[in-house]
Amino acid sequence: MDPVLLLTILFYTGLIVEAMTGAITAGEQQMDLFGVLVVATVTAFGGGVIRDILLGRSPMLFIAKPELLFLTSAAALIMVIIARYFNKLRWVFLALDALGLITFSIVGAIRAQEMGFGIGVASISGITTGVFGGILRDMLCNRIPLAFRKELYASVSIISVWLYLLLDKFGEPMALSVPLTLVLGFCLRMLAVKYDWRIPQFVYIAKPR
Amino acid sequence: MDPVLLLTILFYTGLIVEAMTGAITAGEQQMDLFGVLVVATVTAFGGGVIRDILLGRSPMLFIAKPELLFLTSAAALIMVIIARYFNKLRWVFLALDALGLITFSIVGAIRAQEMGFGIGVASISGITTGVFGGILRDMLCNRIPLAFRKELYASVSIISVWLYLLLDKFGEPMALSVPLTLVLGFCLRMLAVKYDWRIPQFVYIAKPR
Amino acid sequence: MDPVLLLTILFYTGLIVEAMTGAITAGEQQMDLFGVLVVATVTAFGGGVIRDILLGRSPMLFIAKPELLFLTSAAALIMVIIARYFNKLRWVFLALDALGLITFSIVGAIRAQEMGFGIGVASISGITTGVFGGILRDMLCNRIPLAFRKELYASVSIISVWLYLLLDKFGEPMALSVPLTLVLGFCLRMLAVKYDWRIPQFVYIAKPR
Repeated sequence: MDPVLLLTILFYTGLIVEAMTGAITAGEQQMDLFGVLVVATVTAFGGGVIRDILLGRSPMLFIAKPELLFLTSAAALIMVIIARYFNKLRWVFLALDALGLITFSIVGAIRAQEMGFGIGVASISGITTGVFGGILRDMLCNRIPLAFRKELYASVSIISVWLYLLLDKFGEPMALSVPLTLVLGFCLRMLAVKYDWRIPQFVYIAKPR
Repeated sequence: MDPVLLLTILFYTGLIVEAMTGAITAGEQQMDLFGVLVVATVTAFGGGVIRDILLGRSPMLFIAKPELLFLTSAAALIMVIIARYFNKLRWVFLALDALGLITFSIVGAIRAQEMGFGIGVASISGITTGVFGGILRDMLCNRIPLAFRKELYASVSIISVWLYLLLDKFGEPMALSVPLTLVLGFCLRMLAVKYDWRIPQFVYIAKPR
Repeated sequence: MDPVLLLTILFYTGLIVEAMTGAITAGEQQMDLFGVLVVATVTAFGGGVIRDILLGRSPMLFIAKPELLFLTSAAALIMVIIARYFNKLRWVFLALDALGLITFSIVGAIRAQEMGFGIGVASISGITTGVFGGILRDMLCNRIPLAFRKELYASVSIISVWLYLLLDKFGEPMALSVPLTLVLGFCLRMLAVKYDWRIPQFVYIAKPR
């Protein structure tokens, strides 16, 4: 399968799933439907927006294609309707979310490479695109970002970006590097959720002065 | 009345009122006077700043005219002094806030049109300008954005933007479209506050895994 | 001593110390190591990033020199290891933090001057560079920004910026204005911590409607 087509399909899937996680998080905070739509939009596009700001890239995706807001808004509203079944669909959702995370991470790295940046900036760009949508979502919903706690969530983004960049550096074509990164990143994330793998926490208890 | 002059007057009114809502919210969190000034500034200019970042527009208003910070800082300090009477002035304040919200929304849409964007981006631009100052204020003050809960607050922004863009598309001059949008948006918001109209909430209670 | 070299040394010191305050704050929220690194990075570079966004300045420091992320990440990890001794090192830490705050503030003002901006924008730029790293840190960690409450923290930034700009306006060379601002700002901050000087708070208790 053409890797660019594959990435494109998974990228739109990622937008939809990210919008849906935004909607459900807004629902946990009992926001109204406007809040749901804003949080969904910010979650879906936020990672790319922050990346574009950092890299000085323009125009941003949802300014170039504002019609994409129909896609993410529809996804958010569908989530409002199907939320009662959300628990049963949990594994479907986690699987799509994992694919979205890895896709966003790879796309972020590619965007930086296209602009001529090296591996350092491509890493920053990939990770930012992958996880900052969720971080902004959690800031809007007034909670500690899940990406700072959840099972290897951000780690999967980092590992995916570095695996992709490594394969690319060794001259592997995207037709190999993209699917391989997707499969390995996906397995890692799914195993981490199943067995509750986490990276170590840093617990600091402030002493009273 | 010249619609550009009308918008300009109402825009400065909006800056003042937004700064005041920032000050009062900072006071609810018992911030010091520096916090009050920062929150007031961010509330007054934040919507426009985010719009300018998204549209790639520069220079930003308060960079081009830093002396405007005297205006918003003065407004914030006056609010600190008159806060004890705030409850009695509530309806005056709500009325000015409503005018500011609608003005910011129209101005945001116009800014996008001036840059050659279509209706989709003009909508995003108008809504962002109208409500993101308040969203940033609430994020700085560590609470769920009011715009995601309050009586038709964000909805009034959306409806105002679309009404203005619709009148503009039908070739109506600003001398008609601006006052008409202001009057209708204002009435809608005031009625929503009086009768506690809200749009539906999405309540999702996460089940323990 | 060459003032540019002095500022450069103190600037890197500031990056390290800011990253460490980010790490310790992340630890108070029991974040995992990824969260620690993100919060440390945002704290160290966030003030400069926001300044660059507001001024339309590019490329940003950590995009131009992504290798600086090794510096701030190492600082964050060292803080994780030495956190148990943090209380004993408190005064060392406060002293370095004060120097970092003043350095960031002066550097921010200089960046605006280099771009041809006047005193108003240079003030905004200096204060933003000085305090917004910490504000973003606190927003990521879901708490009211310390800069809005702490002993003259932001005030030291403002006073340092204005002192530097004043000396500069009177034609004093950087070899005088930079060390003088550093010494005076440092003494003010240390005295404020020791004697718990604060600027007045604005306390507003919302009445139920």
